[in-house]
Amino acid sequence: MTAAPEAVRLDGKVVSAAAVADLQAAVAGLAYRPQLVFVRVGEDPASAYYVRSKEKLAARVGVRSRTVVLPEGTGAEVLLALVAELNADDDVDGILVQLPVPGVDPAHVLAAIDPAKDVDGLNPVNVGRLWSGGDALVPATPLGVVALLDHYAVPLAGRRAVVVGRSNLVGKPLAALLLQRDATVTIAHSRTRDLGALTREADVLVAAVGRPRLITPEMVKRGSAVLDVGLTREDGAIVGDVDPGVAGVAGYLTPMPGGTGLMTVVMVIANTLTAARRRRGA
Amino acid sequence: MTAAPEAVRLDGKVVSAAAVADLQAAVAGLAYRPQLVFVRVGEDPASAYYVRSKEKLAARVGVRSRTVVLPEGTGAEVLLALVAELNADDDVDGILVQLPVPGVDPAHVLAAIDPAKDVDGLNPVNVGRLWSGGDALVPATPLGVVALLDHYAVPLAGRRAVVVGRSNLVGKPLAALLLQRDATVTIAHSRTRDLGALTREADVLVAAVGRPRLITPEMVKRGSAVLDVGLTREDGAIVGDVDPGVAGVAGYLTPMPGGTGLMTVVMVIANTLTAARRRRGA
Repeated sequence: MTAAPEAVRLDGKVVSAAAVADLQAAVAGLAYRPQLVFVRVGEDPASAYYVRSKEKLAARVGVRSRTVVLPEGTGAEVLLALVAELNADDDVDGILVQLPVPGVDPAHVLAAIDPAKDVDGLNPVNVGRLWSGGDALVPATPLGVVALLDHYAVPLAGRRAVVVGRSNLVGKPLAALLLQRDATVTIAHSRTRDLGALTREADVLVAAVGRPRLITPEMVKRGSAVLDVGLTREDGAIVGDVDPGVAGVAGYLTPMPGGTGLMTVVMVIANTLTAARRRRGA
Repeated sequence: MTAAPEAVRLDGKVVSAAAVADLQAAVAGLAYRPQLVFVRVGEDPASAYYVRSKEKLAARVGVRSRTVVLPEGTGAEVLLALVAELNADDDVDGILVQLPVPGVDPAHVLAAIDPAKDVDGLNPVNVGRLWSGGDALVPATPLGVVALLDHYAVPLAGRRAVVVGRSNLVGKPLAALLLQRDATVTIAHSRTRDLGALTREADVLVAAVGRPRLITPEMVKRGSAVLDVGLTREDGAIVGDVDPGVAGVAGYLTPMPGGTGLMTVVMVIANTLTAARRRRGA
């Protein structure tokens, strides 16, 4: 008996490095340097860490960035006034507010960001353009998932894609992107019955719910592409939504960590470049 | 051998009559009468017919309506100036521009309509709110489909729903509504392979592509709910996307005509009431 061949790694390190090189070249060719502004409220360490990693990457790529830290307890009024100021500042290309902010309705903040500078892609105008076929800014994680699939030439048109998870940040926008690429798309979620029967039909399976090892080898179609977006901390270790044993069944699999997460940061910077080009030209 | 029991009719006449009665009562209870304005360009008879049927229903329900007919050849500038005027008119609750208008980008017109008055639900802000969970105005046909299912108490939560067709007007917004109702939703389309294998898994199947008799009895799960939105004229007769033989397999089926189409007109008026209440209060 021979072991099944291991799935090809959908390697976030390799693909994000290639994407960073492309971004560097693209930014170097501009007559200006795009600017991304982060807004944080208070000193949440996780939030500070995420902003720092994006700032570092921005610097590597040649995108200017700065971070405005508002004191803990800042309310909606002050936050929205800052957003309005950044909207009006012609030298700002991208605005990224780390949400949630305690006591502030996130929908209110997202709706206030100029859609042309909304590098998170969560303003309703961008969501609407994504689903209607307009020039949207699209959330970074789904963009990263599709970039991984494209890098490894995983076909999408006419294929069955199953997205497990229906968040505004990942599941729903990813469904829109896969549909644009002519996949037959199913959105599954916590209320889905017999998830395994559904996922076994998927040529492309993306898990984005944050339930450790939800996707077991029995739930995966042989040779399919499986992408893990879930992320849970368990006794200090990072655990994904996909059981590592899936590598023995799938044709393609993202490592966790080292897969989709690395792509997300890059796509935030890519969105800043997209936003800058649309506003200022190439 | 006994004949299979015929599917329960998802009867657009019955359900639309009930919805009209509800609307009449709701409008009668308002301190004002909502106003809907139709905009048409030129004298296309089909377009004129659709507007007239909506005007008639508006009158029955107690919603004021008027139609602005612009001369054939009217360009984007004049049309958009009219839309801006209607947006600014505090006495106008709903605006409905019959599209397409030759030589005018429909996306441009849709984006110009005040989202609060966009009773077609096609402005990107409304599309975005629909997918993000905000207070959207939603396209009428998908609203009508869900109203039919609800009237006959067809369960949605946890059920498999397959929407065939991915238009902005029907397929995509219907997928959003069914997802909100906790169905597991698949969007199929012209590039979908082995459509029958997919549709046979559907507890709720909606066909909205305009291909006569696309859905045959062999493609339908016994006892499921099948809703026909497609509409093709064939030698003077109206033919749906669903083969009438499906009545022998499905548990619930819309007649064609007399099903989803009757609901659409009512839901446009319902949207006008929703828009008026949000702007003016109840």
